[in-house]
Amino acid sequence: MREAGKLDPVLAMDVGGTTIKAEISDADGRIAAAATVPTPPGERAFDAMAELGDRLLSEVSSGTRAGVRRGAIALPGIVDAARSVAVFSSNIGWREVKVGSRFQDRWGFPVLIEHDVAVAGWAEWRLGAGRGADDVLVVNLGTGISGALIVGGRLVRGGAGQAGEYGHIPVRRDGRRCSCGNIGCVETVASGPSIARAYRERTGRDIDSAEAVFAIAPDDAHARAVIADAIDALADGLLGVVHAVCPQRVVIGGGLAGAGPVLIDGLRARLERLVRVAPVPEVVAGAFGARAGLVGAARYARLGGLE
Amino acid sequence: MREAGKLDPVLAMDVGGTTIKAEISDADGRIAAAATVPTPPGERAFDAMAELGDRLLSEVSSGTRAGVRRGAIALPGIVDAARSVAVFSSNIGWREVKVGSRFQDRWGFPVLIEHDVAVAGWAEWRLGAGRGADDVLVVNLGTGISGALIVGGRLVRGGAGQAGEYGHIPVRRDGRRCSCGNIGCVETVASGPSIARAYRERTGRDIDSAEAVFAIAPDDAHARAVIADAIDALADGLLGVVHAVCPQRVVIGGGLAGAGPVLIDGLRARLERLVRVAPVPEVVAGAFGARAGLVGAARYARLGGLE
Repeated sequence: MREAGKLDPVLAMDVGGTTIKAEISDADGRIAAAATVPTPPGERAFDAMAELGDRLLSEVSSGTRAGVRRGAIALPGIVDAARSVAVFSSNIGWREVKVGSRFQDRWGFPVLIEHDVAVAGWAEWRLGAGRGADDVLVVNLGTGISGALIVGGRLVRGGAGQAGEYGHIPVRRDGRRCSCGNIGCVETVASGPSIARAYRERTGRDIDSAEAVFAIAPDDAHARAVIADAIDALADGLLGVVHAVCPQRVVIGGGLAGAGPVLIDGLRARLERLVRVAPVPEVVAGAFGARAGLVGAARYARLGGLE
Repeated sequence: MREAGKLDPVLAMDVGGTTIKAEISDADGRIAAAATVPTPPGERAFDAMAELGDRLLSEVSSGTRAGVRRGAIALPGIVDAARSVAVFSSNIGWREVKVGSRFQDRWGFPVLIEHDVAVAGWAEWRLGAGRGADDVLVVNLGTGISGALIVGGRLVRGGAGQAGEYGHIPVRRDGRRCSCGNIGCVETVASGPSIARAYRERTGRDIDSAEAVFAIAPDDAHARAVIADAIDALADGLLGVVHAVCPQRVVIGGGLAGAGPVLIDGLRARLERLVRVAPVPEVVAGAFGARAGLVGAARYARLGGLE
């Protein structure tokens, strides 16, 4: 069997709280097969990953199938890539799931795992909106809020734990209780579900997503007020890292990355107002939105590390 | 002339807003000469550095004098070490002062400059209370508040500017105006002068330093309340970096490092309360207190870089 090459197709998967996305793609980003399935709760998610991989591998041509010699799966929560253990996910509900060789045994090629936020941030840095900068903060805004930080051309992994949990910085002392047990975390104001909930509570109107709140903002002062609160809490959460390492650029990725100038310009304006001594970073939208994890997983499968 | 060796004595200087400290010491930390003089305002501080260096070099034996082949000066504010320019100090009042070869021309050996906070934090990391850890935050508490951050075994220098200005993170929206123009910066509550002022304002009693407030805290509820406010603001300022990079240890250095358990245990307790998802870092007092800059400058003179 010949050596796996960097141009070979790879199997990439991104496991989120709602869906599992997967694709087989080559080094030029050409997609040979792709699918998205709902994420079952708990450890059953790992069965769903296995079946989704089976399906994609069976859909491609036999030549392509033979060429797939590497895979990578981006997982949420706390991930120990070196031991190949999905340590903890509160969203989906698993704890200490050994991945090890289970996918390799099934598909016949090595399958790495990594932290979804790290992989997505790395993709934005290396291939997307963070390209060319050595000091970048990529914040994923969606159901949760977390980020990947690049300092001096290296992805920060967190000395004593998983880095980048910006969503759980408490910024509102009189705020709402967060799922983590704390009071007034950034997520309680600025996550997608929190934005939708704040709009419902403020207006009594039914709205089901932050995207919808952003969509009506041009014509709706309540929507604008709710978004301003969210931007305010997010900015407060980012002030610490902006002063700590002076990133030149903040990339807003994740599901809300497409919210547009209301979000991007709003956050930039807020940081310009709040940051005096440290340089104010550029604020830009991510290039890959919610696909960043998949893009990153494919690259990670090829390179074997988040370089 | 023989090569400068790593064991040779060096001239180290640490320029603060109030005093300039200097010493000639060997690699084992033995001090051949040491002195402290007041810091004159503005560019005259550079004349004072030159005269202080002259004085120490004239005080040591001729053998020691001949052995001094390297020097380093830790400067406050913004420092461009590579260009050898003291870019800006609001405290002392200079802007774009080229240091270049002025001290080398005078003393006959190369004299490096560096940022005092970086040098002091590096000393605590490599030789002091941060020793053995790869992810450390060293916070200097004194007239101002700033810090040095070590991530993955490397000192963070700040991508887009000078990193570590923790004192200027705004944490109190209804707070006092800071010298930087912002409202409610950490320094407006937690710096030495702010602690002393808060005690005076609260009690109407005269007290001239934060050290004095810490000294009476065991018997004075007002002092304890003022210190609790300071710890609270400091913790709020550190929450961002704790979540961003998960340092395993926070070292409290600078003039207030000697404040003892009231400060160290108080900050630890506050972080334990506020940090849920990220690991709570250890909190320890710095090993060198206000001498860290001088210790670091001597080591920097020897090694030529903050490795």
